[in-house]
Amino acid sequence: MLTIRSQSHDYTVEEYPLLGKALTSVTGGKGVFFLIDRAVFRHHVTAFSDNVPEETCILIEASEEQKSFERLPSIFLELLARGLKRDGTLVVIGGGVLQDIGCFIATVLFRGVRWELIPTTLLAQADSCIGSKSSINIGSYKNQIGTFYPPHRVLLVADVLKSLPWDQIRSGLGEVIKLQLIEGGAGFNELMNDLELVTPESGWEVISKWVKRSMAVKKPYIEQDEMDRGIRNILNYGHTFGHAYESATKYAIPHGIAVLLGILTATYLSVRLGLVPFSHYQDLKQRLFPWCCPYGDLLVKADRPNIFDAIRHDKKNTGDAVNCILTKGAGRMEKVKVDFPGDLMPAVEQFIAQEMVKGA
Amino acid sequence: MLTIRSQSHDYTVEEYPLLGKALTSVTGGKGVFFLIDRAVFRHHVTAFSDNVPEETCILIEASEEQKSFERLPSIFLELLARGLKRDGTLVVIGGGVLQDIGCFIATVLFRGVRWELIPTTLLAQADSCIGSKSSINIGSYKNQIGTFYPPHRVLLVADVLKSLPWDQIRSGLGEVIKLQLIEGGAGFNELMNDLELVTPESGWEVISKWVKRSMAVKKPYIEQDEMDRGIRNILNYGHTFGHAYESATKYAIPHGIAVLLGILTATYLSVRLGLVPFSHYQDLKQRLFPWCCPYGDLLVKADRPNIFDAIRHDKKNTGDAVNCILTKGAGRMEKVKVDFPGDLMPAVEQFIAQEMVKGA
Repeated sequence: MLTIRSQSHDYTVEEYPLLGKALTSVTGGKGVFFLIDRAVFRHHVTAFSDNVPEETCILIEASEEQKSFERLPSIFLELLARGLKRDGTLVVIGGGVLQDIGCFIATVLFRGVRWELIPTTLLAQADSCIGSKSSINIGSYKNQIGTFYPPHRVLLVADVLKSLPWDQIRSGLGEVIKLQLIEGGAGFNELMNDLELVTPESGWEVISKWVKRSMAVKKPYIEQDEMDRGIRNILNYGHTFGHAYESATKYAIPHGIAVLLGILTATYLSVRLGLVPFSHYQDLKQRLFPWCCPYGDLLVKADRPNIFDAIRHDKKNTGDAVNCILTKGAGRMEKVKVDFPGDLMPAVEQFIAQEMVKGA
Repeated sequence: MLTIRSQSHDYTVEEYPLLGKALTSVTGGKGVFFLIDRAVFRHHVTAFSDNVPEETCILIEASEEQKSFERLPSIFLELLARGLKRDGTLVVIGGGVLQDIGCFIATVLFRGVRWELIPTTLLAQADSCIGSKSSINIGSYKNQIGTFYPPHRVLLVADVLKSLPWDQIRSGLGEVIKLQLIEGGAGFNELMNDLELVTPESGWEVISKWVKRSMAVKKPYIEQDEMDRGIRNILNYGHTFGHAYESATKYAIPHGIAVLLGILTATYLSVRLGLVPFSHYQDLKQRLFPWCCPYGDLLVKADRPNIFDAIRHDKKNTGDAVNCILTKGAGRMEKVKVDFPGDLMPAVEQFIAQEMVKGA
């Protein structure tokens, strides 16, 4: 069991072998209601029907459209109509979209209600389930609304990962890899060697091990800088470019894989700015690129103006400068203001044109 | 200048003689946008047009309907479209409704943006402008959604109170009186004597003095218990009944006057429960009742079931018990669980039937 310190309240991460065990361990007392990813519910319908009263379950479509401010009222009203009270508990079960919706609702309903989280994707288990953040879309604006409010407990169920498609596993591994690069120790090599054992059918113990190792890397950053105003920014390594690649390909690239492509871009830019030798980039590309295939092809086909617009409008950019997390080597990431037309644009152009073509 | 400590950030309360001076003192740097009560804007149109670029002003109807979650998207989208950025500032100008809307938006936009508040009603100046809370309606549920996020600065302009209707002044004085009763010192008598100088046309210096005295009483409660989980509950003295009286009369009774009627009810109930002698209630009624007229009449006409439903569904009640702030005398308020059918209902029935009829 891991304990995370937070400005709102400390919280624990606990492991359960099976979903049913986790469901019966929810510590809500009276008035527990569940927000559940519809696909997760379908896949584990027996675990739910055996352990949870049907009338306490609200099923949510886990789509980007659902994660919008305009769609929240129906969920709030459903919870209030079914009888959630200020001393009740909201249990959120799903991946990133469910976490965003559930966290936002738990933050503002009764000015904060107890909530517990059962993350069901590798991305959510290894990365997003700790750190307090929610992000909500409004109109055509992505992730501009949000809150900081961690769950009161995180319940990790390794078993639920077994039903995920391979690309979702790879996507989660993208953030796992990022965290070991940020850590900068021997973990990265150990991880990349371990990952050779992971296939769509096997390697669950390996994944479970790296979920916990990922949290151990992330914990000090979110505890020191929960509101993401300083040192925690480092965790955005690869994200300025990754977000832009996702958006410019209409989310055809899974998030964690876009982050890996973003890490390669940031490292490539770091080389061009003289921060790190080219050999560091080459080594990294050799290790990471196999985990990105075939999504590099989509980058080559993506409209460059869409990519550049997305980078400029990233919510981390204030005014005209573009803030990037660049690298001076493993474990040495830094926030750097990069000149957009002079340095960033040509580096991204060249990265995609020369590094993402097949066989490069 | 007063400084208030808060978990989010400390903030100051500063006095300005005129609205124009306050407007030009906004410390936003680049990207300042104003959310303004439409009626306040109309009344002070010269101060605004002389000091604030028109394209930065968004006018809001200060109604209970506007304070609903479903109506927020258009305001968020207007702010984003006009160019508010995460390093910008939102300036909120108005009474309680504007403060609720502005505070909620500032809490969740970019996960928290700088905001400054110019409260323009006596209720807002003397009470709500400090303490961090926002309350938002959703569907038919009142104030069930909200946040804790204080402004970064409060700018007090005594001059704007001069344009308020007399009932709004009286309403604000309700909370001023409540705070002196909670304080329990000589302030209550001093206040009630001072108030004899206040008429619809005069007494601004007196009011200005008691705005500051009110903040001084409230400050330690909100600093010690910003999230309203303990000692701050005391500030709800009169509110369980006051809210019910407002709701059962469709908000025909101004908030602060309903609070005064609620204080009399809570004290009457305290007498029936043997907490305080009847003479204490009698003294209080003699001092407070003139400030409630003629709204006691509306209570007599109000449907009792509406009043009782509202008390039971007050968001401070968890489960079946009804929590009330009762009194053992001036300065001695306590949270008490009251038996609803056995004690509370007959006390309220009798209070309205015997104490609110004319000449009682």
